[in-house]
Amino acid sequence: MRDSRSVAVVGVTGYTGLELARILLRHPELSPPVFYVRETNGAKCLAELFPQFRGWGEAPLRPLSVDAITSSRAGTAFLATPHEVSAEIAPALLDAGLRVVDLSGSFRFRSAQTFTSWYKLPAPHADWLGEAAYGVPEIYSNEIAKARLVANPGCYATSVILALRPLTEEGWIAANTSVVCDCKSGATGAGKDPRRDLHFVEVDENFKAYNLFTHRHTPEILEHTGLNEDQLVFSTHLLPLARGILSTIYVTLDQPQSAQDIEALYRKYYAGRKMVRIWPAGTLPELQHVAHTNFCDIGFALDKSGRRLIIVSCLDNLGKGAAGQAVQNFNHMLGIEEHISLQ
Amino acid sequence: MRDSRSVAVVGVTGYTGLELARILLRHPELSPPVFYVRETNGAKCLAELFPQFRGWGEAPLRPLSVDAITSSRAGTAFLATPHEVSAEIAPALLDAGLRVVDLSGSFRFRSAQTFTSWYKLPAPHADWLGEAAYGVPEIYSNEIAKARLVANPGCYATSVILALRPLTEEGWIAANTSVVCDCKSGATGAGKDPRRDLHFVEVDENFKAYNLFTHRHTPEILEHTGLNEDQLVFSTHLLPLARGILSTIYVTLDQPQSAQDIEALYRKYYAGRKMVRIWPAGTLPELQHVAHTNFCDIGFALDKSGRRLIIVSCLDNLGKGAAGQAVQNFNHMLGIEEHISLQ
Amino acid sequence: MRDSRSVAVVGVTGYTGLELARILLRHPELSPPVFYVRETNGAKCLAELFPQFRGWGEAPLRPLSVDAITSSRAGTAFLATPHEVSAEIAPALLDAGLRVVDLSGSFRFRSAQTFTSWYKLPAPHADWLGEAAYGVPEIYSNEIAKARLVANPGCYATSVILALRPLTEEGWIAANTSVVCDCKSGATGAGKDPRRDLHFVEVDENFKAYNLFTHRHTPEILEHTGLNEDQLVFSTHLLPLARGILSTIYVTLDQPQSAQDIEALYRKYYAGRKMVRIWPAGTLPELQHVAHTNFCDIGFALDKSGRRLIIVSCLDNLGKGAAGQAVQNFNHMLGIEEHISLQ
Amino acid sequence: MRDSRSVAVVGVTGYTGLELARILLRHPELSPPVFYVRETNGAKCLAELFPQFRGWGEAPLRPLSVDAITSSRAGTAFLATPHEVSAEIAPALLDAGLRVVDLSGSFRFRSAQTFTSWYKLPAPHADWLGEAAYGVPEIYSNEIAKARLVANPGCYATSVILALRPLTEEGWIAANTSVVCDCKSGATGAGKDPRRDLHFVEVDENFKAYNLFTHRHTPEILEHTGLNEDQLVFSTHLLPLARGILSTIYVTLDQPQSAQDIEALYRKYYAGRKMVRIWPAGTLPELQHVAHTNFCDIGFALDKSGRRLIIVSCLDNLGKGAAGQAVQNFNHMLGIEEHISLQ
Repeated sequence: MRDSRSVAVVGVTGYTGLELARILLRHPELSPPVFYVRETNGAKCLAELFPQFRGWGEAPLRPLSVDAITSSRAGTAFLATPHEVSAEIAPALLDAGLRVVDLSGSFRFRSAQTFTSWYKLPAPHADWLGEAAYGVPEIYSNEIAKARLVANPGCYATSVILALRPLTEEGWIAANTSVVCDCKSGATGAGKDPRRDLHFVEVDENFKAYNLFTHRHTPEILEHTGLNEDQLVFSTHLLPLARGILSTIYVTLDQPQSAQDIEALYRKYYAGRKMVRIWPAGTLPELQHVAHTNFCDIGFALDKSGRRLIIVSCLDNLGKGAAGQAVQNFNHMLGIEEHISLQ
Repeated sequence: MRDSRSVAVVGVTGYTGLELARILLRHPELSPPVFYVRETNGAKCLAELFPQFRGWGEAPLRPLSVDAITSSRAGTAFLATPHEVSAEIAPALLDAGLRVVDLSGSFRFRSAQTFTSWYKLPAPHADWLGEAAYGVPEIYSNEIAKARLVANPGCYATSVILALRPLTEEGWIAANTSVVCDCKSGATGAGKDPRRDLHFVEVDENFKAYNLFTHRHTPEILEHTGLNEDQLVFSTHLLPLARGILSTIYVTLDQPQSAQDIEALYRKYYAGRKMVRIWPAGTLPELQHVAHTNFCDIGFALDKSGRRLIIVSCLDNLGKGAAGQAVQNFNHMLGIEEHISLQ
Repeated sequence: MRDSRSVAVVGVTGYTGLELARILLRHPELSPPVFYVRETNGAKCLAELFPQFRGWGEAPLRPLSVDAITSSRAGTAFLATPHEVSAEIAPALLDAGLRVVDLSGSFRFRSAQTFTSWYKLPAPHADWLGEAAYGVPEIYSNEIAKARLVANPGCYATSVILALRPLTEEGWIAANTSVVCDCKSGATGAGKDPRRDLHFVEVDENFKAYNLFTHRHTPEILEHTGLNEDQLVFSTHLLPLARGILSTIYVTLDQPQSAQDIEALYRKYYAGRKMVRIWPAGTLPELQHVAHTNFCDIGFALDKSGRRLIIVSCLDNLGKGAAGQAVQNFNHMLGIEEHISLQ
Repeated sequence: MRDSRSVAVVGVTGYTGLELARILLRHPELSPPVFYVRETNGAKCLAELFPQFRGWGEAPLRPLSVDAITSSRAGTAFLATPHEVSAEIAPALLDAGLRVVDLSGSFRFRSAQTFTSWYKLPAPHADWLGEAAYGVPEIYSNEIAKARLVANPGCYATSVILALRPLTEEGWIAANTSVVCDCKSGATGAGKDPRRDLHFVEVDENFKAYNLFTHRHTPEILEHTGLNEDQLVFSTHLLPLARGILSTIYVTLDQPQSAQDIEALYRKYYAGRKMVRIWPAGTLPELQHVAHTNFCDIGFALDKSGRRLIIVSCLDNLGKGAAGQAVQNFNHMLGIEEHISLQ
């Protein structure tokens, strides 16, 4: 009765939701998605609300209703909704037999306490916390393929975890040294709601740090890199551009390594993973290389001692950092090639 | 009792008000201005509200109250307030003997009806409408010097009027031909209130036309160029930058002219006027040349026939288009050199 | 021997060539294109030269040689080359039986004299000037489908011609009135060569007019709108953004019209044309709506008299203004749906 | 014979030189500066070369000649010239009795070997290396006041040294821990020469790291913070904006401190220094706060342990990072208040 090629998309009004629409509308394995929003303002199709979709986004738009979704044939629901909305509706959809890819933070932690202390919100239903797969397919593709609920990771977290995981798994980071993650993001990462600090004039020709020591992506990074809280220093900055995250990550290695060894470690770890691109030693990726793509590009520089390593990791915060990765996860859930509709 | 070197500034929270603060704080002929805002949020000095002023903006900040202003020694009040607020408080300040430079649209028109039909607001007190001088000092310096109330012009209007006035006074524009004013402004011109369409992501890498045939600066342009409504075509666009207006103006001349004649006409009209800079024939000003200044730069191109003329006029919408011009008007009112504090 | 699904792309190093690569690499009806450049710097594949193509641009890269192309199986060559290079190599390719889509200005005019006087270059071979189809498929699809040589139009010209053609064909523009085309383009339109005036700092937060009365796209516009030289006033400006052209076009109508009539005229003219989107009366397109697409979006505003019309036409200068339109033309030449690979 | 209020400015064509012109032209204690450039292109005054100075930059422009400068009355020369030019002409000017403020890297190091190994250029005359004062007036005002030659610091170095010096002087940084300086600069910092990687389209909507472990400002930072080479990790990035540097600096403290203690340390160190502004604990400066100023703004965040400290330091790379600081140094050399002409 549920049709795995039929999907519901909830919450298309933010930047992440719009990007999800762009990707899913051209997905060759899907029937046209049905979009659900809280306020349709009388619109019956996506292009009425977002004129940039005219001519190719004549997909149906409906008022958000859990019943409407559960009584449709949709096999999977994407939730591009606020944390509390996801926490509320995901269980109902799951109970009705849908699979869910949730782009909020609600199901990213095994521990309800981690969620409540960082998000200051009531914890989602504990059963589902335990069952959710964390949606970095380069690391957890097996879990994702089988999962009924995938928690799509935070954008900053994705860029940091992909950069650090090969080193932490291999045990190359010196104990008791700080791992500094200095991350910079474009303004789509801050959401679409009008805010004084997101007014064009406040972001244009400006640059600033924010949420030092307090960013909500911290616990995801700790959990999926295995670093302990004393080691990780994670900072975030707002760039005067629309799309992209570049993380500059500073690591002290346990033993001196050569640039070749480091490149080889990354290439081995991501062998066969099309969406992570390792840059040759001596070259560095830039935001422009990944904007409007689903790639995470990783490069590095090593000092003469061979022990101080700087890793540069970049991705599009709406692509691999959100909507693109959500579809990549969905492709794993469907059992099709992970990059379909993402190139 | 009133001290002509003492000023009150009302409404410092918008971009225009901030620019006014920047200019007045370094004005060599003034004692430190007193700033009045609706909401002080407990701040006692400008730098508490706007940390960028720390170290040089320790000027007093007070809750807006007409009584407080009238009972101070202030000789002049600058109103960087919404139209309706200016309309309400200007008469009370004038009655108490202050001179007023109003940056809103409230007193720009002799006819109350013009104001009400374009602004959809109740008309300000008719007596003051008649008495206000229109604050383009290159044209009306005599009136401004004597005026008790100066209506500071709109930013677009300033750029268009300064570009067209020499031609219309001289009668060089062919009758029954359209004068097309295609104007482009940076985002500070749209105000500081958070609005979805002014979110960084909506302006960045974007460009759009707005308010075609309906922009409120239309009646100012008509009145001070002498063009009739059938001739003027005035359009406005939003540029992805913070500061500046560039107007491209298309005129059909009555008689063929040479580029030398046109340059000479402009140079003669603006002789001795430091704040309008005429560019030599064959060269064109750019926004960068006037950003963060009080200049209006004017250049032009003429076609081979000598009858089709394109004028390019540019200025900083917060400078010559608003706060700078307000201070230039104030300098005339004080009887000091017009460019003081403006270079 | 020639394979219509096999293409050669000459000159991939500019912004237009890169965009062409992006589109052709995902074209479902093609075998991987072969790219030819003057300087390969030892690179054997596109991704070596342009790392952003890693993982999906492993297409072969070869040193430019007419012999290499003619002795390959390529059925069509795209020329993203300077005018003089196109003029030189297009005839040789055509003589060898290839079809050619040329993105330079060399073959856009029937008259060699028009080309030489505007481009200050020797005229291309006269036989081919006469045979070339002008590549606006919404107007000349029949000619394009049969053509051996398609001259892909200028970016500004495309935006203006698509906006004016319905009016001029219908004879709605008043005689002896100026048609003012105030056009603004992003910086990719100015080419990729390092130039002082294209340095980031010279474009950022800046805006300027250039080439007034002298822009090379003028004769294309005249020829394909049917306007005479006295009527057309065409100006160009540089926007501080990467991609997009927005043209604001001012027309005086012969007879008063209603907004409905105007919208109906455009809808009828472009009925069935997926790549031109007409905006409902009262709404206007913005650059963001067309960036990274092959759409040309057209909207308008009409004054109360019904005779003064402002048309806003926008497109991506690398998309519908260059590479996208080239592929759209190619699709017509292949006899497949015009929008394939363009959504 | 030498007039201390008369200055020569050499090399006004770069962004730093232009900013220097802007500041010196309004300096109240100076007679109009004379500007010297390699190529005058026939211009006799600054405004002919740079039209943005029309109306206030009618200062004389002359072809660069050491003789012309030494035979003028100039008491001080500012050198905004390439390293090798400064190295060549500074000694001749000094020998003729001028004082010199050099904005290049040539005289920043006591050790000729440091210069040659980082700059790959011949060392300047050794006598002058020893005599030059390093121009951070908040640290070396006594030396600067007496100096005949002041080496104006690098822009990145200024932002890092001002942020770290209070901590290193006090001995608060834990031994054997890395000090990570993640620095980001606007594009004026990269110079004005046309380069492919500084084309608008390559910087706009882009962000990248560069010169990791190899930036030339490294030895300045080492020398004036007292950190050793093993401790300092210094990285640089290019922001898509024109002006400003923001450095995010990660320090591990020897002992836990409170935020109040840290703020107090900075306030004490910079007491009476108008050009360094310390932000209250819990607040952070942004680039917008310092653009177009001579301020260096410093804020910080401390983690719960009181041992991991993040310092945010920002300044305008053309202001406090170059031309502004040069004038601040000059003011010290003249014995006048350091902030004159800098607010």
